[in-house]
Amino acid sequence: MKKKNKKVNAAILIIGNEILSGRTLDKNTAFISNWLNSKCGISVNEVRIIPDIEKTIIKNILDLSKNFNYVFTTGGIGPTHDDITAKSISKAFKTKYEFHKEAYKILENYYGKKKFNDGRKKMAKLPKGSKLIYNPSSAAPGFITKNVLTFPGVPSILNSMIDNCKQYLIKGLKVHSKTLNIYTVESNISKKLGLIQSKYKKFVDIGSYPFFRLGKIGVSIVTRSTSLNKLNYVNKELLNLVKNKKIKILN
Amino acid sequence: MKKKNKKVNAAILIIGNEILSGRTLDKNTAFISNWLNSKCGISVNEVRIIPDIEKTIIKNILDLSKNFNYVFTTGGIGPTHDDITAKSISKAFKTKYEFHKEAYKILENYYGKKKFNDGRKKMAKLPKGSKLIYNPSSAAPGFITKNVLTFPGVPSILNSMIDNCKQYLIKGLKVHSKTLNIYTVESNISKKLGLIQSKYKKFVDIGSYPFFRLGKIGVSIVTRSTSLNKLNYVNKELLNLVKNKKIKILN
Repeated sequence: MKKKNKKVNAAILIIGNEILSGRTLDKNTAFISNWLNSKCGISVNEVRIIPDIEKTIIKNILDLSKNFNYVFTTGGIGPTHDDITAKSISKAFKTKYEFHKEAYKILENYYGKKKFNDGRKKMAKLPKGSKLIYNPSSAAPGFITKNVLTFPGVPSILNSMIDNCKQYLIKGLKVHSKTLNIYTVESNISKKLGLIQSKYKKFVDIGSYPFFRLGKIGVSIVTRSTSLNKLNYVNKELLNLVKNKKIKILN
Repeated sequence: MKKKNKKVNAAILIIGNEILSGRTLDKNTAFISNWLNSKCGISVNEVRIIPDIEKTIIKNILDLSKNFNYVFTTGGIGPTHDDITAKSISKAFKTKYEFHKEAYKILENYYGKKKFNDGRKKMAKLPKGSKLIYNPSSAAPGFITKNVLTFPGVPSILNSMIDNCKQYLIKGLKVHSKTLNIYTVESNISKKLGLIQSKYKKFVDIGSYPFFRLGKIGVSIVTRSTSLNKLNYVNKELLNLVKNKKIKILN
């Protein structure tokens, strides 16, 4: 189960009207993507943000779970009426939506028998056969159903529990990256940069991103590769390009 | 073309490895979504973040442009090799990818004939028949191809030019929203809140979002509706619920 594959990928499915409406900035994508790459060598290849609508969740769960090794969902697993992620995943995979014994016990212990009301019990109802992802912050566990891993939407809680899913994931090769920040405009280097990318396209991805910092205009050249040697090699060539053009380096 | 429809929707397609990898936090979704709702009465119903890969861009452009009234894309329209949005949209719609006369003139004027190099010229190559979205920050225009509106990925530039696409959009009904912040936990109100949502589900959407602020735990109840009257009505009922439960209000 846990052998090192060359490429393991994932999609993230952000479930929540609060992100779609622009009320809340999504911080989970950046966190999950960085964690997956650095800790598991898994690349996030697509992210979708969708509303709390059952048929939309079902459609996207089926679509993404078919096309990616893993799907990480965030949001919609609390006690209120708009928390419909667990039920929707059950429907997507045609598995029962029922009390998970261990989750029930964890929550009952956490709240105490007297305060374990219906809303809290709801958080123990999961797709049948799900494995739990323990939650050290607020007890209510995440869960794994087939290749779908479900987390809460609150970033601080998600961040505190993500390490607990690591044991279940097949690991891939980490993508290393380097960033070269230089004071120039993209169109001054675009031609040469394109040539370097063509030459090494099999091993290294080169991205170019303009920035505006302290009133100065610059470009971040970001290189990515599963091979640190090749990354260093391409970066030497980039440094030569910058030197030849007499461009000032920022970092 | 510009009559007021009841429901007009849009999808956002964020094109860029820098967002997927977690290097850069996506701020464009929140900005575009807020702008579309407040200025045009258009609701964003889905967001996708995808890598700079031609066939992935083509697939998503076709998929989203078929299923939503508008698609807003961000990223990939600069001068470097990884800027392939315009070419990919041309391929998606099987239209020529060629110099746009007006865009060419704008860029030539901006840079001056001598400094108008190949990288800069590339930014004037667009899907045939596209309309321009003028860019007051850095000249290189965005463009509209069928129902797809294409913007740069740099938030400050995107923000400066978005008003220039407003004239081309069909307007819908604005969704009003109210937020009630209270000091309680979700499971204390989930049952009553669910009943209120059931009662008014045709007119008002109620979302419940836990928060942690200054060491205190609370819940934001967010109501949304195209009718301000109905929104106020439901909020009165929510205030009664909060009063009956003796919950402290934060705002």
